[in-house]
Amino acid sequence: MELTVDRVGLAFEALASGDRGKMLEYWDENVRFEIPGNHGHAGWYEGLDEFLGFLATVGEYSAGTYRAENVTVLVNPDSGYSVDINKNWAVRAGADHDSTSPYDKLDVDALHVLRWRDGKIVEGRGVLMGDGGTTSALWWSPIRADGTRAH
Amino acid sequence: MELTVDRVGLAFEALASGDRGKMLEYWDENVRFEIPGNHGHAGWYEGLDEFLGFLATVGEYSAGTYRAENVTVLVNPDSGYSVDINKNWAVRAGADHDSTSPYDKLDVDALHVLRWRDGKIVEGRGVLMGDGGTTSALWWSPIRADGTRAH
Amino acid sequence: MELTVDRVGLAFEALASGDRGKMLEYWDENVRFEIPGNHGHAGWYEGLDEFLGFLATVGEYSAGTYRAENVTVLVNPDSGYSVDINKNWAVRAGADHDSTSPYDKLDVDALHVLRWRDGKIVEGRGVLMGDGGTTSALWWSPIRADGTRAH
Amino acid sequence: MELTVDRVGLAFEALASGDRGKMLEYWDENVRFEIPGNHGHAGWYEGLDEFLGFLATVGEYSAGTYRAENVTVLVNPDSGYSVDINKNWAVRAGADHDSTSPYDKLDVDALHVLRWRDGKIVEGRGVLMGDGGTTSALWWSPIRADGTRAH
Repeated sequence: MELTVDRVGLAFEALASGDRGKMLEYWDENVRFEIPGNHGHAGWYEGLDEFLGFLATVGEYSAGTYRAENVTVLVNPDSGYSVDINKNWAVRAGADHDSTSPYDKLDVDALHVLRWRDGKIVEGRGVLMGDGGTTSALWWSPIRADGTRAH
Repeated sequence: MELTVDRVGLAFEALASGDRGKMLEYWDENVRFEIPGNHGHAGWYEGLDEFLGFLATVGEYSAGTYRAENVTVLVNPDSGYSVDINKNWAVRAGADHDSTSPYDKLDVDALHVLRWRDGKIVEGRGVLMGDGGTTSALWWSPIRADGTRAH
Repeated sequence: MELTVDRVGLAFEALASGDRGKMLEYWDENVRFEIPGNHGHAGWYEGLDEFLGFLATVGEYSAGTYRAENVTVLVNPDSGYSVDINKNWAVRAGADHDSTSPYDKLDVDALHVLRWRDGKIVEGRGVLMGDGGTTSALWWSPIRADGTRAH
Repeated sequence: MELTVDRVGLAFEALASGDRGKMLEYWDENVRFEIPGNHGHAGWYEGLDEFLGFLATVGEYSAGTYRAENVTVLVNPDSGYSVDINKNWAVRAGADHDSTSPYDKLDVDALHVLRWRDGKIVEGRGVLMGDGGTTSALWWSPIRADGTRAH
């Protein structure tokens, strides 16, 4: 199974499908995935189930507003790496959709570094560009702009 | 009940005593208390019970190693404010006690700003000096120095 | 020279006066002063002249918009400490005054911890409350909200 | 001039060569390059000369200890993007080489996202993985672990 730009796209489609059998065609059951930074949801998730648990948290925190737009996908079939670059937006659950506060609004350029083996992703790292590490820490934090705890 | 340096000390003794009746002589039942920063445990805790819940988390994360040494206490009885300045140390539960990593070892100068009314604390803010906001975020984070999740 | 709430206020008036002789009535020539965080202007300034150099930088970065409002002052004459608590606002030079971006707009609760000896301040530490360490790092950074460098 | 893994490697060799004519075979004179985060050296450098100025600062801050080891290179000739993933180490000038403090020692996984046009790099973004945004901010800061200013 050659590592191609198309196959990277299909892996993320499978992840979004909710169909575990389809996911396992692209994602190793023991895949490790790193969420960047040091906020409460950062660090390495071990195994597909932990990673899916994190994605459920994203859905909950963003109340379904999370949106990503792909910029480009790169692959190196020899080393078994892919990188997909994306723009990402979300509004924190409960926040005003017009808010400009980084505690409410996520607006980051980000990418995934994926390592493939035998046609499946065995390791992934989410990575934030620019000053996205700081601004996304505000979005992920339990606090609102006034310091009160939302979670 | 005059606001004195001694009374500030007694308020923290009461908090540490585990005796709720004694606590309520110094801490208002509806006290709000802010933990600084944007890590997973930051923000305003509403009411004595939420605040005690946070202190229990400190005990759990530090496996009982948290230690504080008072430097000085200041009061302004007219405005109803006190400030107590302290040095604080802790080792993260499960970490090597000789570790020098800021993900494992907490070593910060900090202070509490307390607002008193009718002899009781109605609002408190924990505050970190120097670069303690950054280093304590590492300590409070779910990750170890290698990025694996401890919590 | 007793350490009183009034004397703390006079020390800051002297600092703002631009009159070095008046400053030296309250500030030791070898005073050390710490700006919190790890941004490009953070850390200990050694001596009154270095500290005045920092204050000039504040004036330049804020194009004179820096404004502070005192909340309260506390003293402990026995230990020789004072704490003054303030609200602070500024707009970054060149930024739109209506901007809500933390890269442009500073809005923090802060305090100074001052150590006095023989009637003069020998050591001071600026301290930021809440999540002010993060938001002020954005304000102090060389970058604007779009990542372009302003300095 | 096709965008290949080899050509990416040659672009960085040219940059390290000090030979401006060679650099201009791979780097557009008006290249923009982003250093991530919000520390004093972060943000977009405009033009090859500004970028070379930043690289000189890296050399000065690290006293020549900066070392990088390539992990892999990925290209997408259709979209004109390349990504090179690297491990990076450095010791801050003046620091003890055995220091384990993140204020002294840089140890980060990082990558460059490069956009190519007509065989030359027109835009580049340095990107830090894991919690490298936080730890590298300490390294880049003007302060040492004790808060004194090194720069």
